[in-house]
Amino acid sequence: MTVMDKEARVSIEALGDHLDETVALQGWLYNHRSSGKIAFLQIRDGTGVVQAVATPSDVDAATWEKIQSLTQESSLVVRGVVRADPRSPGGVEIHLANLQVLQLAEEYPLALKEHGVEFLLNHRHLWLRTPRQVAIMRLRDRIMRELEDFLRDDGFTRVDTPILTPNACEGTSSLFETDFFGHPAYLTQSGQLYSEATAAALGKVYCFSPAFRAEKSKTRRHLIEFWMIEPEMAFYDYEDNLALQERLVEHVVDRVLQTCAEELETVGRDPAQLERIRAPFARISYDDALELLADQDFGIEWGEDLGAPHETAIAGAFDRPVFVERFPAKCKAFYMEPDPQRPEVVLAADLLAPEGYGEIIGGSQRIADYDLLLRRIREHNLPEEDFNWYLDLRRYGSVVHSGFGLGIERLLTWVAGLDHVRESIPFPRMLNRLSP
Amino acid sequence: MTVMDKEARVSIEALGDHLDETVALQGWLYNHRSSGKIAFLQIRDGTGVVQAVATPSDVDAATWEKIQSLTQESSLVVRGVVRADPRSPGGVEIHLANLQVLQLAEEYPLALKEHGVEFLLNHRHLWLRTPRQVAIMRLRDRIMRELEDFLRDDGFTRVDTPILTPNACEGTSSLFETDFFGHPAYLTQSGQLYSEATAAALGKVYCFSPAFRAEKSKTRRHLIEFWMIEPEMAFYDYEDNLALQERLVEHVVDRVLQTCAEELETVGRDPAQLERIRAPFARISYDDALELLADQDFGIEWGEDLGAPHETAIAGAFDRPVFVERFPAKCKAFYMEPDPQRPEVVLAADLLAPEGYGEIIGGSQRIADYDLLLRRIREHNLPEEDFNWYLDLRRYGSVVHSGFGLGIERLLTWVAGLDHVRESIPFPRMLNRLSP
Repeated sequence: MTVMDKEARVSIEALGDHLDETVALQGWLYNHRSSGKIAFLQIRDGTGVVQAVATPSDVDAATWEKIQSLTQESSLVVRGVVRADPRSPGGVEIHLANLQVLQLAEEYPLALKEHGVEFLLNHRHLWLRTPRQVAIMRLRDRIMRELEDFLRDDGFTRVDTPILTPNACEGTSSLFETDFFGHPAYLTQSGQLYSEATAAALGKVYCFSPAFRAEKSKTRRHLIEFWMIEPEMAFYDYEDNLALQERLVEHVVDRVLQTCAEELETVGRDPAQLERIRAPFARISYDDALELLADQDFGIEWGEDLGAPHETAIAGAFDRPVFVERFPAKCKAFYMEPDPQRPEVVLAADLLAPEGYGEIIGGSQRIADYDLLLRRIREHNLPEEDFNWYLDLRRYGSVVHSGFGLGIERLLTWVAGLDHVRESIPFPRMLNRLSP
Repeated sequence: MTVMDKEARVSIEALGDHLDETVALQGWLYNHRSSGKIAFLQIRDGTGVVQAVATPSDVDAATWEKIQSLTQESSLVVRGVVRADPRSPGGVEIHLANLQVLQLAEEYPLALKEHGVEFLLNHRHLWLRTPRQVAIMRLRDRIMRELEDFLRDDGFTRVDTPILTPNACEGTSSLFETDFFGHPAYLTQSGQLYSEATAAALGKVYCFSPAFRAEKSKTRRHLIEFWMIEPEMAFYDYEDNLALQERLVEHVVDRVLQTCAEELETVGRDPAQLERIRAPFARISYDDALELLADQDFGIEWGEDLGAPHETAIAGAFDRPVFVERFPAKCKAFYMEPDPQRPEVVLAADLLAPEGYGEIIGGSQRIADYDLLLRRIREHNLPEEDFNWYLDLRRYGSVVHSGFGLGIERLLTWVAGLDHVRESIPFPRMLNRLSP
C-alpha cells in the first residue's frame, strides 16, 4: 500500500473545480455494477460520493479485469477526467483511465441491503461509513460548531467543568461511581454547579462535555452517555435566559439550513419543518399544560414532573418549539429560584421541540439568596458540607443568575428528523450497549 | 437583590465606546481604598476591571457611607460618567454618581495577599475570580476555539468518541473502572482507536474530549483528568502528519498573539517567546537525542521511553518546538507503523515545546497491514477478541493513515508560561485533589 503522488490529490467535494481535468482521487468503493460493456463505480472519500465510469476501450485489459474483481469497501486510487454530469449528485462524474487498488476488501458484512438494528449497532465502526450516517455526523459537527460560535460571539467564555466529582449530590442511584485513589468519585451528570462558580468569575460562561446518567431507561430519547452544552450567565434573570435560548436555537437551525442542504436531503429531512423555526417560541405554563393533558386523559397530578408522553402531547399542540414554564418546586431541582408571585412554582422552563421530539433544553433562574438555598439543601436532605463551596457563591457577592442545559443528541435528533437518538452519536452507550 | 434596568447595562470591556456618557455597570468589588477625600473602587465584571472614583462632593452622604462599608467581592451596580484616563488599564475610569449594593459580601477568604497553593486549590471556585486566573481561562478558551476552527476550516469533521469503553486494552493499572449495569467499563485514555474508524468514514476527523489516566504521578505536568484533541487522517502518512502539527501549533500561537495581548500581559508572559514559533519546527531522531542525553550523563538506554527530565534536556537544546522522532518500537504503542528502512523503530514523533515545557503532542502513522497489526496485538498480549472491530479497519479497505493527540493543558501551560499544569484547567484533578 503506498500513498499516491501527493500533488495530484483531489477530494470528491472539490471535483467541480477541476472540470475536464485529469485528476486522481483516493477513497473506498461504496457500490459498483458492471456489464461487459460499461462499469460504474461509486467511490466515497469522506467528503462525498462520485461515480466513475469505465469502458473496455478506455482502460487496458488488466484494469478492466481488476474492475470486475472489486469488492465493496476496497480502498483505491482512481485517475481520470472530470466531466460535468447534471444527473449526478455532485454534478460531475469521472471517466476512469487508471485504477490502483490499495486493498481488496474481504467480503463486507454490511452489504447494501437491509440489516437489523442490533447488527448495525454491533458494526457501528463500519455502519458509520454509509452516506446517511456520514450526513448525520456532519450535521452533528455543524450544530456543535454553531452553538459554540454563537455563544463566543455573544461574549461567552468556554470554561470546562470536571467529569470526576467528589459528591453524590442527588443520590447515587443514577450515578456511575469509580475509585479515585481510595476515594469514591462520580461521573458528572451536569456541569451546572461548577459553571455557577465560573460565571461569578467570567460573567457569561458555558461548559461543553459528556455527561452521564446511569438510568435504566430504554426509550428512543435516552442515552447513558451524552453531550451537553450548559451556558450560565451572571446578571441574567429568567426572561433573559429564555430569550437567549430562543436566539441560540433559531441561529443553529438557520445555519444548518444555510450550510447543510445536502445532508438534510440525504437523511430525508424536509427543510420546511425547520424553516418555520423562528423566535419568539410558544409558551405554556405547567398549569395550562396540565389542563391540556387532562383533556387527553393522561391522569397526571399537579406536582408530578412531565414524562416523554406528556411532552409529546404538549409539543403536538404547537407548530414551533414551546417553553413549558413555572413548574412546581417540588418536582424540580433544589437550586431553582421560586416565582416571587407564587413561591410554590419555580422560574424554570423546559424547551420542547415540535413534531413530538420532546425536551431539548432545561433551564432556570438559580437561587441567589444564601438562606433560601441552605433551606432547600436541608429540605432535600442533601449533605450540607458537600455544598459548602456552592454556598460560598451566595456568601461572596451573590447575584441574579440563570442558565440552561442543551442536549446535543436530542437537538440533532430533532433537527435531522431521526427516529431514535442512537443514530445521533458516533458510538452510542445505552442500557444494553457498551461496544464497540 | 434586583437586576438593574436592562437597557442601561454596559460591560467593562465596552466602556471605551461610551466616553463621557453616563452608564451603569454591574459587577463585583475586586479592591478598594479610600481616604476621607476620595475613594477608588476596582470593579470586575468578567469582561475586565475598571476603576470607579468617588468624592464626597460627587455623591450624597448615604452613598459615601456605603462606599466606606464595602467589602471585597460585594456585588454591586455603579452608575457614573465614563472618562478617558490613559493611566488606567482599559484607558477609562468611571466618575461614580450612584452605587447600589446587591449583596455585601462576608469577609472574603481570598483577601488580596499571598496564599499557599493548597489553600488556593481548596478555594478554586473563588480563586478563579482573580485577574490572573480569568486571563488563563480566556487563553484556554482561545486555544480551544482556534484548534477547532483551524481543523474545521481545513476540512476536518469533529466526531466524538466515547468516554465509557468496554475494554482494558492496555492493562487496568492506569484505568478508572466503573460498573456499567453489571459489566466493567473503563474511562477512556484516548479516542484514537475510535477515530481511526471514523476517519475511514469521513476522511479527516478529530475528537475532542476529556481523557483519564489513573497514574500515581505527582509532577507539574500531570493531571488525572485532562482534555485532548485528537485528529486522525485517512491517506496521511508520517510526513503529512508532522506538517499538519506544525501548521496547527503555529496557527494557534499566532492567533493567541493577535487576540490575547492583554491576557498574556496579565499572566506575565513575554510575547517574544511566542513570536518566534514558526514552522518548520526542529527535528531530532530518538537515536541522536540519546547521544545528546549521554553527553549530560542521563544514563538512559536505547529502547527506554523518554521521561520528563529527558524531554526538558532535549527541548533545551532548541529555541523552537522540536520533534523527537523514530522511537524504538518496543517503547511505544502496538499500533504504530514501523519505519520501512529500519523496522526496529516506528514512524512516531513527540512534539516538545521549548523552555523546558516538554511533550505537547504525540503522534504516529498507524499500522495499515492486517497481519502485522494482529501480530503486534499478540506480541503485546492484548485480548485479541476485544480488537476485532479495530482489526476490521484493516480487513475492509485499509489505507495509510496517521494522527496525533494534543494535550490542551500542556499546550496552554507552555503558551501562558505557567509554572504548573494545575492552573491550566478550571477544576484540576490530581493525585490528591478531587475537589471542589
